[in-house]
Amino acid sequence: MNLEEKYFKNISNRERVIFEGAITMGALFHQFIGTPVSIKSVESLERSIESAMSLQPCIGNVEVKIDRDVLDEIDNEYDYISLTGEMLDVKIMSNYSDKRAIIRLKYIKELNYPLMYIEDVY
Amino acid sequence: MNLEEKYFKNISNRERVIFEGAITMGALFHQFIGTPVSIKSVESLERSIESAMSLQPCIGNVEVKIDRDVLDEIDNEYDYISLTGEMLDVKIMSNYSDKRAIIRLKYIKELNYPLMYIEDVY
Amino acid sequence: MNLEEKYFKNISNRERVIFEGAITMGALFHQFIGTPVSIKSVESLERSIESAMSLQPCIGNVEVKIDRDVLDEIDNEYDYISLTGEMLDVKIMSNYSDKRAIIRLKYIKELNYPLMYIEDVY
Amino acid sequence: MNLEEKYFKNISNRERVIFEGAITMGALFHQFIGTPVSIKSVESLERSIESAMSLQPCIGNVEVKIDRDVLDEIDNEYDYISLTGEMLDVKIMSNYSDKRAIIRLKYIKELNYPLMYIEDVY
Repeated sequence: MNLEEKYFKNISNRERVIFEGAITMGALFHQFIGTPVSIKSVESLERSIESAMSLQPCIGNVEVKIDRDVLDEIDNEYDYISLTGEMLDVKIMSNYSDKRAIIRLKYIKELNYPLMYIEDVY
Repeated sequence: MNLEEKYFKNISNRERVIFEGAITMGALFHQFIGTPVSIKSVESLERSIESAMSLQPCIGNVEVKIDRDVLDEIDNEYDYISLTGEMLDVKIMSNYSDKRAIIRLKYIKELNYPLMYIEDVY
Repeated sequence: MNLEEKYFKNISNRERVIFEGAITMGALFHQFIGTPVSIKSVESLERSIESAMSLQPCIGNVEVKIDRDVLDEIDNEYDYISLTGEMLDVKIMSNYSDKRAIIRLKYIKELNYPLMYIEDVY
Repeated sequence: MNLEEKYFKNISNRERVIFEGAITMGALFHQFIGTPVSIKSVESLERSIESAMSLQPCIGNVEVKIDRDVLDEIDNEYDYISLTGEMLDVKIMSNYSDKRAIIRLKYIKELNYPLMYIEDVY
């Protein structure tokens, strides 16, 4: 057992993928909320969020979609806005040993809240 | 079952406290890293990080300690630095139903990394 | 002339206070946007933003007001929201030698934009 | 005179380019410090910082260089680190009417500080 494994011996592999995926989702949200974004820059921002966050422990693929409708409707002199949680739709795949989780961030209208939940874990 | 519970019916209560505690730890790190901090402002910063992050779903007590030794040794004209992950020691208590987790962030010298792990879950 | 002064010998004292105040306003916005906030935590957050940002070069008093009306109207299960630029009203006083500037951040309804401008410089 | 111009009638065009360039430099630093970065993701991160920050008022070209030497020497299990101010070398060009400024962020060893200064204004 290496040093890092010692810190996680109190949880199962399934719990580990939930743990690591959740950390990365919280991190993604709070790192990038506030970033200036427009139709011109949105794709570059999506790709760089994906490549930054997939560096974290146990993280595989990351998919980030920023709401184009909101960007199309920007109505100020400067043609950009600050990224908000409501504009984000994110999937984070985490893996450890034989386990895998898909963590989702999505704005849920009925909750009036950008909810983070576990789409699948197996 | 309310709407929010539907999103979490695929995981156990134990997994839920791990999930929510981990989100908040990732959030805390990436929200506040970079904040200017000195010996003068450190306590105000610790308390406001605690009260901000304890607002998140299922989060109870949050304890933030920023390394005073680093602050005492600041050696530049401006007497402050940007907060780094290495300076943080954090405990986040998450609760859901009958379950509780203590999530920890601590710089581990042997790993040369500010590690997030689960100190206890029960 | 010390080393730091060499980097600023190409601008006037009046330009210096504008420069330093503006840096700190941009920094404040992008450091703290996204922070969880509610009526319970708002005052602690205001005070810690003020004490953090007043550490920066040439910065004197900082006054942060977060819109209580928005916080009173929060309508989700979790009773908090992420701080946005629209909720902020900020004054930053910068000083250098005999000069002083007051930099303001305020949401301007007609511009649909949280505008940063110079309220006074003398 | 449009509405926005009214807010800036108390400063010269030269002061305006200093003001807007400085805001964007403070914003850039505090938005992106803490972002996970490695040799694999560094170029995507540089380009997306540039395209995000060039959206801000009066900003033209933005050049971001992240220190590859630091990334080559990463020595932890996860092969990435959190972006720090010391790793950044940035030039921001701001324009307004007939005036232009080049704002620079660079780590100055003698100051032990990532300094923001005005490289040129004309």
